[in-house]
Amino acid sequence: MLSNDELARWDRDSFMHPSTHLAQFARGEAPQRIITGGEGCHITDRDGNRLLDGFAGLYCVNVGYGRTQIAEAIAKQAHELAYYHAYAGHGSEASITLAKMVMDRAPEGMARAYFGLGGSDANETNIKLIWYYNNILGRPEKKKIISRWRGYHGSGLMTGSLTGLDLFHKKFDLPLAQVIHTEAPYYLRRPDASMSEGEFTGYCVRQLEALIEAEGPDTIAAFIGEPVLGTGGIVPPPAGYWQAIQGVLDAHDILLVADEVVTGFGRLGTMFGSDHYGMKPDLITSAKGLTSAYAPLSASIVGQRMWDVLARGTDENGVMGHGWTYSAHPIGAAAGIANLKLIDELGLVENAGTVGAYLNRRMAEELGDHPHVGEVRGEGMLCAVELVADREARRFFDPSEGKGAKVVAAMLKRGVIARAMPQGDIIGLAPPLCLSEAEADQIVETTREAVREVLG
Amino acid sequence: MLSNDELARWDRDSFMHPSTHLAQFARGEAPQRIITGGEGCHITDRDGNRLLDGFAGLYCVNVGYGRTQIAEAIAKQAHELAYYHAYAGHGSEASITLAKMVMDRAPEGMARAYFGLGGSDANETNIKLIWYYNNILGRPEKKKIISRWRGYHGSGLMTGSLTGLDLFHKKFDLPLAQVIHTEAPYYLRRPDASMSEGEFTGYCVRQLEALIEAEGPDTIAAFIGEPVLGTGGIVPPPAGYWQAIQGVLDAHDILLVADEVVTGFGRLGTMFGSDHYGMKPDLITSAKGLTSAYAPLSASIVGQRMWDVLARGTDENGVMGHGWTYSAHPIGAAAGIANLKLIDELGLVENAGTVGAYLNRRMAEELGDHPHVGEVRGEGMLCAVELVADREARRFFDPSEGKGAKVVAAMLKRGVIARAMPQGDIIGLAPPLCLSEAEADQIVETTREAVREVLG
Ligand SMILES: Cc1ncc(COP(=O)(O)O)c(C=O)c1O
Ligand SMILES: Cc1ncc(COP(=O)(O)O)c(C=O)c1O
Repeated sequence: MLSNDELARWDRDSFMHPSTHLAQFARGEAPQRIITGGEGCHITDRDGNRLLDGFAGLYCVNVGYGRTQIAEAIAKQAHELAYYHAYAGHGSEASITLAKMVMDRAPEGMARAYFGLGGSDANETNIKLIWYYNNILGRPEKKKIISRWRGYHGSGLMTGSLTGLDLFHKKFDLPLAQVIHTEAPYYLRRPDASMSEGEFTGYCVRQLEALIEAEGPDTIAAFIGEPVLGTGGIVPPPAGYWQAIQGVLDAHDILLVADEVVTGFGRLGTMFGSDHYGMKPDLITSAKGLTSAYAPLSASIVGQRMWDVLARGTDENGVMGHGWTYSAHPIGAAAGIANLKLIDELGLVENAGTVGAYLNRRMAEELGDHPHVGEVRGEGMLCAVELVADREARRFFDPSEGKGAKVVAAMLKRGVIARAMPQGDIIGLAPPLCLSEAEADQIVETTREAVREVLG
Repeated sequence: MLSNDELARWDRDSFMHPSTHLAQFARGEAPQRIITGGEGCHITDRDGNRLLDGFAGLYCVNVGYGRTQIAEAIAKQAHELAYYHAYAGHGSEASITLAKMVMDRAPEGMARAYFGLGGSDANETNIKLIWYYNNILGRPEKKKIISRWRGYHGSGLMTGSLTGLDLFHKKFDLPLAQVIHTEAPYYLRRPDASMSEGEFTGYCVRQLEALIEAEGPDTIAAFIGEPVLGTGGIVPPPAGYWQAIQGVLDAHDILLVADEVVTGFGRLGTMFGSDHYGMKPDLITSAKGLTSAYAPLSASIVGQRMWDVLARGTDENGVMGHGWTYSAHPIGAAAGIANLKLIDELGLVENAGTVGAYLNRRMAEELGDHPHVGEVRGEGMLCAVELVADREARRFFDPSEGKGAKVVAAMLKRGVIARAMPQGDIIGLAPPLCLSEAEADQIVETTREAVREVLG
């Protein structure tokens, strides 16, 4: 335990936390947890608790905690050159090396990496590049972005608009006008229970086509989607979804942005989710797994057909006025290099595939038949258990009952961190990619006990 | 020199640099510079050049390069706990301590610090909080933001809209509709040469009042401004400006956002620019000087009257749906703590005032009378030399002649980095706050020689 007894009070009095009930936290009613260290899949807090982190921070500490190799790379960079900017052709050995490493790992057809700080700003960059692209092509009307309900793409004004979750719109006047939403590819919540997966995919495609028709294809610039819906509920797409969507986009010359902030760099058992589902994105958003969160860094990976137009744009208009002071920050770049090396050395992409499959299988075996479990689903090192009031009738719980949050609290009491996803009663799991089978067993066992405690 | 000969090629082939001519860079026509280290006010590059950095990176390396104390704090944090998130009341010793340190240094009347990554995302947060605030107060129409022409507030879709510079709007369809711009408080460019500074302030005030009247005061939520215009030209406000503006805002219940990304934590010789000019902001944006860029971190500092409404908002609506994965990143927080301590220990706020004044005085003495210098101006450790075609007639150069860029290139040849500000022929200087008088002399001497070389 640390010696500073005032820390808890400073926290309540000075610190505005993200995604927090501000009033309750300030009054001391909402919980406070001060994290002091971590190793592998575990973190420790100031009160001496050691917890198995089944959500890898915010699905970002992919290599696990306490990796000395990354800490040392950060330390070395901090001593050599903590910062210089990357504007106007400046760079550091670390940022250039990482750009090369990212491109070596990216799916086919990608041309360049632009570095930012987090997933939100990477998507912000993406939308700017898309608008610029269509201006250079002389299509000033082709600007709307289609996103999906339940997508998560960030928390800014534009990126929170792309996000299709009530919590991120309410009281913020979002979404902005340039963003429109289409059906979430969420099979459990299909409109008609009798639909097969393939039929539901067809339904999603028709919804998208109808939206494009209604708005006018010449007004639609891009479609953005996570390979697997993340914060919206950890939902893999129904069979054939991405191939069918890709066809619609190609037919209307609509760009595809694959938001791989969660799936990039291994979480699905492949380097990118685009590889996993055969998507052909024009832009890939990445962040979390790029550095395993050891330092902030994002990358917008730009495909060749966009790159060619962007480059032409600067020949026609000069320097492109886009940049963050901390774009390609050397500390983030050094962390990224060490992290990607570690992912290779430890075989974590493969481990995400095998242990992720094990976690999902074991979870389905233990909880798949529970009368209040509507679905156990997942892909790679992502797993969700969705609670329902009535399994046969597909009736969901009243959100005010907070069943998901209660199960997650019951898991925490038993030493395992899961996340109650914000819309629905969904227990989300996204452990570090280094999870062992024994740790997977502990997660499954704890989930089972917690579900029983709350729901019988 | 580093051993990797392929670095230069990787850079051209893989890395999309911010604010760069993409096509020329890819073709190898635009310059490339790979920075390898730095100490104090100097950086070194891979070709063995040692340069005096008169712009402190992008006016952000306030304590100077190579500060072992900060590097060690980063290293220690990276080994102990590189990352855990700050959502839902979580924190680290570093993030909480820094929140307390920021609030101890903030101007009177501020209540909480929210941590992001860079200046753009901090302004993004600010606009979200302002909209939320007026929704909680039941004023859904009061949402427009007034910014100034030549303001710089970031490079995102909303923050690039707040920015009032052509380069950041062109081909990006900005500004968005919610943002409107008013007169830049730029005395050299006053509409009528006969105006005194006080008269020009009156003119700016009348322009603002007319805009508010035209739009309707009930539609205007906030006014955002940098205490001293930065990227727009490094322009201190005319006499009495902030007090007069504050009066207009108060009369119409319009919030004030002081964008102190450049001025925060000492650059003007005071801890904040708001202190310097007696501004009473409701929100303060800070970034750069908070960590001296050693790691990415921003802080939105929220004033009491907003905080009370935000807290009430969560009592009425539950958790606030706003956050970045890397909000309050422990590495950034550790860098921030060490940086703020160092600023105190080295007396850098005071040094910014005294050596900054020296730099400005010496620059005015050496260049103030040059026939092609329209103005030497500055405040604290900010200084600008604006070039003109004709001093008496206040005629500016044709931008296509690139006079500013040429002078900056001539300075670089002599070993000093300055910045050609993007709109106008303006030599910008914003050295580290630890600049010595001898280094100030070198900057002045180099500027003088370069101006002579280019303009006679
Ligand atoms: C798919 C996806 N995109 C974007 C983001 C936003 O990233 P950040 O929180 O780093 O801004 C997230 C964050 O969870 C995400 O899951
Ligand atoms: C006054 C001001 N605000 C905001 C920003 C944006 O900060 P960042 O580049 O870190 O996003 C800057 C950057 O120069 C700035 O000068």
